[in-house]
Amino acid sequence: MRSRKPSSRRGDLRIVQYGLGAIGVACARAVLETEGLVLAGAVDVDPGKAGLLLSEILEASGGKPSARVDGPASRMTVAATLARALDGRRADIALHTTQSSLRRVFPQLRACMDAGLSVVSSTEELALPFATEPAIARKLDALARKKGVAVLGTGVNPGFVMDILPILAAAASRDVRSIRIERVLDAGKRRASFQRKVGVGLSPSEARRRLHEGGFGHIGLLESALLVASGCDLHPDEIRETSHPVIATRAMKSAFGTVRRGEVAGLHQSLSGLRRGEEILRLDVVMALGVSDTHDAATIDADPPVRLRLEGGIPGDTATIGALLNAIPRICAASPGLHTALDLPIPRPFARTRR
Amino acid sequence: MRSRKPSSRRGDLRIVQYGLGAIGVACARAVLETEGLVLAGAVDVDPGKAGLLLSEILEASGGKPSARVDGPASRMTVAATLARALDGRRADIALHTTQSSLRRVFPQLRACMDAGLSVVSSTEELALPFATEPAIARKLDALARKKGVAVLGTGVNPGFVMDILPILAAAASRDVRSIRIERVLDAGKRRASFQRKVGVGLSPSEARRRLHEGGFGHIGLLESALLVASGCDLHPDEIRETSHPVIATRAMKSAFGTVRRGEVAGLHQSLSGLRRGEEILRLDVVMALGVSDTHDAATIDADPPVRLRLEGGIPGDTATIGALLNAIPRICAASPGLHTALDLPIPRPFARTRR
Repeated sequence: MRSRKPSSRRGDLRIVQYGLGAIGVACARAVLETEGLVLAGAVDVDPGKAGLLLSEILEASGGKPSARVDGPASRMTVAATLARALDGRRADIALHTTQSSLRRVFPQLRACMDAGLSVVSSTEELALPFATEPAIARKLDALARKKGVAVLGTGVNPGFVMDILPILAAAASRDVRSIRIERVLDAGKRRASFQRKVGVGLSPSEARRRLHEGGFGHIGLLESALLVASGCDLHPDEIRETSHPVIATRAMKSAFGTVRRGEVAGLHQSLSGLRRGEEILRLDVVMALGVSDTHDAATIDADPPVRLRLEGGIPGDTATIGALLNAIPRICAASPGLHTALDLPIPRPFARTRR
Repeated sequence: MRSRKPSSRRGDLRIVQYGLGAIGVACARAVLETEGLVLAGAVDVDPGKAGLLLSEILEASGGKPSARVDGPASRMTVAATLARALDGRRADIALHTTQSSLRRVFPQLRACMDAGLSVVSSTEELALPFATEPAIARKLDALARKKGVAVLGTGVNPGFVMDILPILAAAASRDVRSIRIERVLDAGKRRASFQRKVGVGLSPSEARRRLHEGGFGHIGLLESALLVASGCDLHPDEIRETSHPVIATRAMKSAFGTVRRGEVAGLHQSLSGLRRGEEILRLDVVMALGVSDTHDAATIDADPPVRLRLEGGIPGDTATIGALLNAIPRICAASPGLHTALDLPIPRPFARTRR
């Protein structure tokens, strides 16, 4: 029998929520609810949001209204720029949830760093930018060092379920020969904007056209694959991404009404990493209505082999909020610069709702 | 389609194998086989081993003889002390696999540090010594800093399957309320010394007596529990450990002949972490002959909840070797001092057999 003292109360961290889409609104709400965090400002470039009271946006978002929109937060307006949101006040960290494209968000990240904020961002292309966008990554890293702040791109996918978790699962094995990772989720349980993103209700030809155009479906499969390759010392010499619509075999309910048989129920996206023609890396993500066996899994061919499974799977939205908030203490303790999940201490739960 | 260049060849690291029990012998063999590692010396305090050729011990251990016991390694003798093993030559890291008790191994760890070696150790009580042995931990930390070396206690359990992996699985969740972790393994597939450790073939009363005396069964459940508590910000105010023998319900084969019905087939050890009387942490490890549903699992009550399962479970011995070898690059990159798995970057596979 032993006793442990509870850790001392953490000093409050001042957080700016940058971006108030579905994830950003949920993040802002979570910051308001979380012990040790204070919401110091909210930014959205959308002229339809800037100038509104944050409390209005939170109420309109449909989730349970936060009991914590009180004190200064009850009068907080959404600012169109970071400078206006801060208005000379100090803050510690930006939770940045705007877009997937690193090129597009670069000016936003720069503004955060210029204001002396460390950044935790959900931008998928920031998960392993040294591999995918080396020039921008070097620029971000240099700027972060100069300003003495730390920057991390993370989230649930990429950043957790299809990369970091499988990498750790392989960490007691030698001679990793191949890794197969799959994520199967029920799009019917996700919000309307997610269902739209995976083509629910489109005709198959329209879905194929959009897949061909790009920027459609899940963004970040390449980042996950490169994280796994880097983390497991696998060296594919060729990477192939293929995607196809999942066709409804019966009528199903969606956020936009009934999807008929023959219409698109979702997407199946795959990435294959080959070395000398042999598949050493395989990632599959299935996001469709009517999927019953939702799960996350990884099969690692190594000594010993590992078969990991998350029964029911990790739900995307709530886990994204968790992953972003839980990254806060690690980014606070990190050295200045641009980081990836591979060079920081292991992610762990931190966020607790105030009592 | 993208290409990635293979990373440049790692500089060879010089490893001393400290301890040549079953795990140590397997470690030495693995070092000889692994790309980027060189075996620089072998130490065992056992007078029955010191002075023997390492190649004799490797052959006697029954595993496949390593094709790599050539060059200097073919003439390497086992030394009784680290000083004799090194004989003035440089080395980088000690793989330390001797005993579970931190007090007992302290002089060995000090000798490694005095010789300028960083240490990766399988000593179970070194997994989170700041919590369990704070005075020794502070001494080790100060010494490591003074000598400019890094020290880590790790392995598969504690150090991976019942602590670090569940912590990471919880890392996209908020409000972790409780964690239940179980490890069920078939003692019939483990070596004789393991079967002896879990009481195979004893009478139930003898097994209970040894459990009561301590130092019997799996060591490290407390370390795993404290790692999880620390990593997941759980604060049990009481920890209870209970263990009981698993009784054979039919005759079963063991490493020592047939175990009869009514004799001990293994152990079931449990640890319960309570807060105000409520169980917030529960670890169960079942190690017995005749277990069919071998697995590792973690059930995390949080938002979102997580149910993780490793089908078939992680085999202890091969995974311990993997975990120790895979820690080498992290300990090389670590700052001087005593580390735990919670403050280093995420564990990941590194060890690859030379081609």
